[in-house]
Amino acid sequence: MADLTVNFPAWVHVREVGLRDGLQIEKPITTAAKERLLDAVVATGVRRVEATAFVSPRAVPSMADAEEVAALLPRWPGVRFSALVASPGGARRAVAAGITDLEYVVSASDGHSRANVKIGTDEATEKIAEVAATVHDVGGRVEVIVATAWDCPFDGPTPTERVLRIVERAVELGADELAIADTIGTATPVRVQRLIGAVRERVGPVELGAHFHNTRGAGLACAVAAVGAGVVRLDASTGGLGGCPFAPGASGNIATEELVYLLHDMGVETGIDLGLAIDAAAVAQDVVGHRVPSNLLRAGDRKRSG
Amino acid sequence: MADLTVNFPAWVHVREVGLRDGLQIEKPITTAAKERLLDAVVATGVRRVEATAFVSPRAVPSMADAEEVAALLPRWPGVRFSALVASPGGARRAVAAGITDLEYVVSASDGHSRANVKIGTDEATEKIAEVAATVHDVGGRVEVIVATAWDCPFDGPTPTERVLRIVERAVELGADELAIADTIGTATPVRVQRLIGAVRERVGPVELGAHFHNTRGAGLACAVAAVGAGVVRLDASTGGLGGCPFAPGASGNIATEELVYLLHDMGVETGIDLGLAIDAAAVAQDVVGHRVPSNLLRAGDRKRSG
Repeated sequence: MADLTVNFPAWVHVREVGLRDGLQIEKPITTAAKERLLDAVVATGVRRVEATAFVSPRAVPSMADAEEVAALLPRWPGVRFSALVASPGGARRAVAAGITDLEYVVSASDGHSRANVKIGTDEATEKIAEVAATVHDVGGRVEVIVATAWDCPFDGPTPTERVLRIVERAVELGADELAIADTIGTATPVRVQRLIGAVRERVGPVELGAHFHNTRGAGLACAVAAVGAGVVRLDASTGGLGGCPFAPGASGNIATEELVYLLHDMGVETGIDLGLAIDAAAVAQDVVGHRVPSNLLRAGDRKRSG
Repeated sequence: MADLTVNFPAWVHVREVGLRDGLQIEKPITTAAKERLLDAVVATGVRRVEATAFVSPRAVPSMADAEEVAALLPRWPGVRFSALVASPGGARRAVAAGITDLEYVVSASDGHSRANVKIGTDEATEKIAEVAATVHDVGGRVEVIVATAWDCPFDGPTPTERVLRIVERAVELGADELAIADTIGTATPVRVQRLIGAVRERVGPVELGAHFHNTRGAGLACAVAAVGAGVVRLDASTGGLGGCPFAPGASGNIATEELVYLLHDMGVETGIDLGLAIDAAAVAQDVVGHRVPSNLLRAGDRKRSG
């Protein structure tokens, strides 16, 4: 049989994205509620947290308090906080607000790119240079996230070559890290393995992350395949917060606590305390005021010994 | 990287267990409602359906109409229907009702075995001979399902040797097929791969199935690992019906339509039409009268071309 553990690292970095991807399609919650959620997720031991997005407050009202959220972050000095941006203007706003560790998104499909940022993939790719210069000037870092890397809600399956062109160009233009995102939750393990393998071949030793949604139930299966293919960082959202505006009622990101359960059970460390991650998911459910998708939140951890 | 596809077969047999494992913890529904659900699942093209269980109607009131359900089945001649039993008495009831294709469950942990059937694992194992004789007498088949194969809600982690003793003895006593079940939804891919690999080594070429719950979100990830390790049959329930009496609110079996989506997307055939499987899940939701766990039911199939 194919040995799943051949390439499993001892450690996978889990980045909490509940505050950003998880909340972005929710009705806006107060900054105080976000502070409560940040407190809960930081308590779990997670080392990286995507705290907010500097994007149009008209397009994404729930991220309109990005500057206020940024002002809270010095409270938790041990954590590496980042913010998502979709343009060089967003990067300048983030840096002005004190966040110098950014994720910049480029959609691999023109349809999604135009719907999101009103420009096509090639134009969005070239803007990496300006975002990188903005953060590098202040000693920061930029990760380029390739969105709709497997499928696009408008254009259908994404040709692999489109993804490879972006990652190659991203490295040339100054990206410090890369991530491959299944924006609409349609990927499955074999396609994950093939695309991640192709990306690694093209870009060499750049640290590679992945971002999955559980929209069709396969999120964790994809995460395992990605780690087996060489990904060392996975995004996840507390409680499985999030979803997709194009699929009402659809599940959100893979749930942080479910990912942590799975990784620990397979002998992969994350630095996150599972019990505290379940507690954080309960806080997430409380602040959004409705049931969150996490199954583990309802079932709890397993009995560990007889 | 570990090539996931090394051992992937061209075809995986999906057995629909929503009528049994899915409904067994639900408030009883009418036999007419079960008939409607059977109609919907048979329409999907599924070849194997576990239609009911011949167990104590006091312990499992929702299976009290097992004889009535059995009487419906000749309506759908192309399908291989089976029933679950927990004792030789149940096997005799099933055969008398016309079902000769049985699943007989043995819990690998004494705690779960005693809670379920009031006898320990060894005693339950020896009864395989009587169940096998009962069905073989009428030209039927028996599959032995090893329950709590990874973890037990009472005894904690299950020692591998306990599972191996059952499968070895099951083959000696006349089992025609075997399945390994994660009864409480705690397994993860690497543990799945290890146990399935050990079972295959012990029993040789007997057809091996697996049964997963999505209680902690890892159900499909485990299914992929199991197929990679040599499993050729997977149980699933329409809509993800089901759950566990020991974990209120917990998710049920892996959802048939999510499994079909995943397998087809990876190039593995099932004979099931995905669109009709989604329709069946909607019927399942309707007959139980509450939201079912399936994410795919809410999200729908992906866009197939640009």
